Parts: sequence; structure tokens; C-alpha cells
Amino acid sequence: MGLKYRIQATIPYDMADINSNVRLPQLMALVMQVSGMQSVEVGMADDYILEKFGLGWIISEHTMTIKRLPRFLEEVTIETEAMSHNRYFCYRVFKVFDSDGENIFEMMTTFLLMDIKNRKAVPVLDEITEPFGSSFVKKIIRGPKYKELENPETTDYRVRFYDLDMNGHVNNGKYLEWVYESLGVEFLKKHVPIQVDIKYLKEVLPGGLVTTAVELEDLTSHHQIISEGEVSAVARIEWCQL
Amino acid sequence: MGLKYRIQATIPYDMADINSNVRLPQLMALVMQVSGMQSVEVGMADDYILEKFGLGWIISEHTMTIKRLPRFLEEVTIETEAMSHNRYFCYRVFKVFDSDGENIFEMMTTFLLMDIKNRKAVPVLDEITEPFGSSFVKKIIRGPKYKELENPETTDYRVRFYDLDMNGHVNNGKYLEWVYESLGVEFLKKHVPIQVDIKYLKEVLPGGLVTTAVELEDLTSHHQIISEGEVSAVARIEWCQL
Repeated sequence: MGLKYRIQATIPYDMADINSNVRLPQLMALVMQVSGMQSVEVGMADDYILEKFGLGWIISEHTMTIKRLPRFLEEVTIETEAMSHNRYFCYRVFKVFDSDGENIFEMMTTFLLMDIKNRKAVPVLDEITEPFGSSFVKKIIRGPKYKELENPETTDYRVRFYDLDMNGHVNNGKYLEWVYESLGVEFLKKHVPIQVDIKYLKEVLPGGLVTTAVELEDLTSHHQIISEGEVSAVARIEWCQL
Repeated sequence: MGLKYRIQATIPYDMADINSNVRLPQLMALVMQVSGMQSVEVGMADDYILEKFGLGWIISEHTMTIKRLPRFLEEVTIETEAMSHNRYFCYRVFKVFDSDGENIFEMMTTFLLMDIKNRKAVPVLDEITEPFGSSFVKKIIRGPKYKELENPETTDYRVRFYDLDMNGHVNNGKYLEWVYESLGVEFLKKHVPIQVDIKYLKEVLPGGLVTTAVELEDLTSHHQIISEGEVSAVARIEWCQL
């Protein structure tokens, strides 16, 4: 059990979609800010880790279970906890509670520490995990199996200037936006996600094109994001009809 | 002179671009929230106006003068004032001050009141402008002349699910995003805007394609956003090299 960190938040207009539900990529960005705030509080801010160890966090996978999405103007509590880690992977849990204290959204995110110079993963440092109260566990938590796509629908997108974050990388949330957009406006107006799994394999480089590939099987969608001929991310989403 | 309303804000990570400057479309969204907050404070919230009068605000033009853009983690003060109005147009000023009290960004926005049922502009109601302290002035403030494009470069964009706001419309900020993207990543990495004028003529409808058209003349870019064969917005931006 790690230290818990909580903030209150209200969903503003520009975080709401056409159904008044929170935009999932923006909720992801918000909860990530909360873990950033915890890192500052325990003295392990991202810039400190970069300066002291030459390391940076990268995300390898998200698993979300969604009872319901927070809605426009809803006041929620966001909680995060650096739950556990093994030799390479750190597991962090994010929860969103509504004003009745009900847990409406839960996400487990797998992080790795990367050497910024050679961009390779390095073993977790106790000095970094200890202030968060994260426990060492030998077990590797495996995400779901992602289906091979047989006959997907594909769409090309140009990587835009505003798809890049301050570090010149395509932000994690963007991959989920591409995954979403591949399903089309009409589908997205009538469905909400209840389970989302997304795994990052390779960075999408700025300046080029990305291709989204999607197969819809009943109410489960299977996705690939392809950049320069290689799969950059895979995802699966279970949907519920509105 | 109208009532002034101020808030403090800090520019978060996801509002910063690759040069650590604020993303202009997101700054626009933020300052619009501030005018929304003032409307609530003076008892003229958007939903009240809609319910009581069947009216909604629409934006017809923005004129921005930018001394410098707020930067990542910078603390700024945002001020807004409903300056004046004539029979149809309401003029609101937004200012951003840095921590030394220097005015680094100024935007004048022209608003109209629209009958939500027939989507036509209606004359301004005193009952609505009075609580803001807006003065009646006969004079119509005219924006700049927008140049006809002779040989523009064009690019097509699909309107995305997340380009739509809660009301199912393409948000004003999106037009400016398209304007920006038409210049390409390499140009945007090396230039910052110092003067931005954008005029909205016709709504981009969800579901279709938009075409951006751009002509660059020295350090001034001239833009059109075209949807279903008609010009939806025109813009001009003066740039400064980084």
C-alpha cells in the first residue's frame, strides 16, 4: 500500500463531450497531473528525477474500469496511489469518486523509468519509489491479450503541431483520441466506454502520418495505431449503448 | 466602462506548446470561462439568458494584440470587461497581466445575441447588458480588412468527435487550431503570433470536412476556413520569428 494523494476537481465546459460526459483523454491528462502533484509533495518531482538521475517516467499501459464517466460541472475527488513495483514496472492506481463517495472510475497505469540519454528502460530505483510508500512485489501484472486485427478499417491522420507536448512528443492522451476518432462521430455519440485497455509500444514521431486501424466486434472495439509501418499502440474498448 | 472581473491562473503543462508558450486556442477558451464566471456573478449566466429570453451569445470576431504569450507555470491575472455595445454588437475586452502587472495580451471580442430557435441575431437587450455596466455607443467598431486569397495552399481536415462541444457545435477555438495547423509544424516551432484577427462567418457543421486555405506574405499569414463550399471563417496573423 502506497501513500494516497487526493484532490477535488470540477469538470469544466471544455472537458465535456457532446453527451456532457468527461472527455476520456482529458480525464487521463487530469489524473496524470494529480500524480505529478503527489510527486512534488513527496520530493520526487519529474524535473528532480531528471536532474538527479537522468531518468524520466514513461507509460507502458493503462487499464480503466468505468462505472460511469464524470459529467459536466460534477464535483469529483481524484485519488492516486503508487501501489507497488517490481524490478522494472511501477503500478499506480487512480480512482475517481463522486460526491456520494462512490468509486465511478478506476485506472491502473504501468510506468517504467527511462534513461533520457539512450531512451532505454532502467531498473526501478528504491530511492525513487520509497517516498511514495510503494511496495516491492515480484509478480508482473499482465494486461489483457490484444487481438490481432484481420480486416480492419483504417484512417490516416496527420500529426498536428498541437498533438505535440512541451517535450516535442506526442502526448499519451493523443493516442486515445486517435483510437476514439477511428470509430466515427455517430458511434461515439451513442456509446460510452466501460472498459478501456491501451498499451504503448513505440513512440509516434512528430511530423508524419499515423494510421488508425479498428475492428468492431459486437460492443468491443479492437485498435492499432500505426506509425511509419510499425504498431505504436494497441487498444481494446468495451462499450455500452447510451 | 464596464465592471471588471479578474481571476488568477497558472498555465498548466497541457496548455503549453513545444516552445513552452501557452496554446492560443486554449488561452481563448480560458478567458471565455472568465467571462462566463462574470456572467454568473452579475446574475446573467448563459443558462439564465437561454431560459429567460431564449437567447444565446455568439462570437463574431476576435482581435488580439500579443506582447508575449504566457508561459508554462507562469502565474497570470486575467481581466475581462464588457466595455460597450451598440444596437447589435457587444464589445468585451480581455487582458492578461503578468506578475509584474504588465499587460502582455489583449483581446477584443465582438459578441451578438442570437435567438436560439431561428438562429438569427436579435438587438441587444438593456436588461442583459445593464448588470455588466456596459455603455451604449452608437459607433460600430470595425475589424481589419481580410485579404482575398489568390493562390492559397489548401489542406483538408475531417471534423472530429472531439472537435464538437457540449452543444454539438464546433467550438470557436477549433477554427483557430485549423488556422494554426495550416502553417505546418516547422513554421509553428519557429514563430509566435503578435497580432491575430479572426472573424466567424458561418458555422462549420459536424460530420464533414473542412478545408484550410493559407497564403503567407512575409510574416503575415492570411487564412480561410471553408466548409461545404462556403467560407466559415477568415483570419490574419502577424508573426514574429523566434
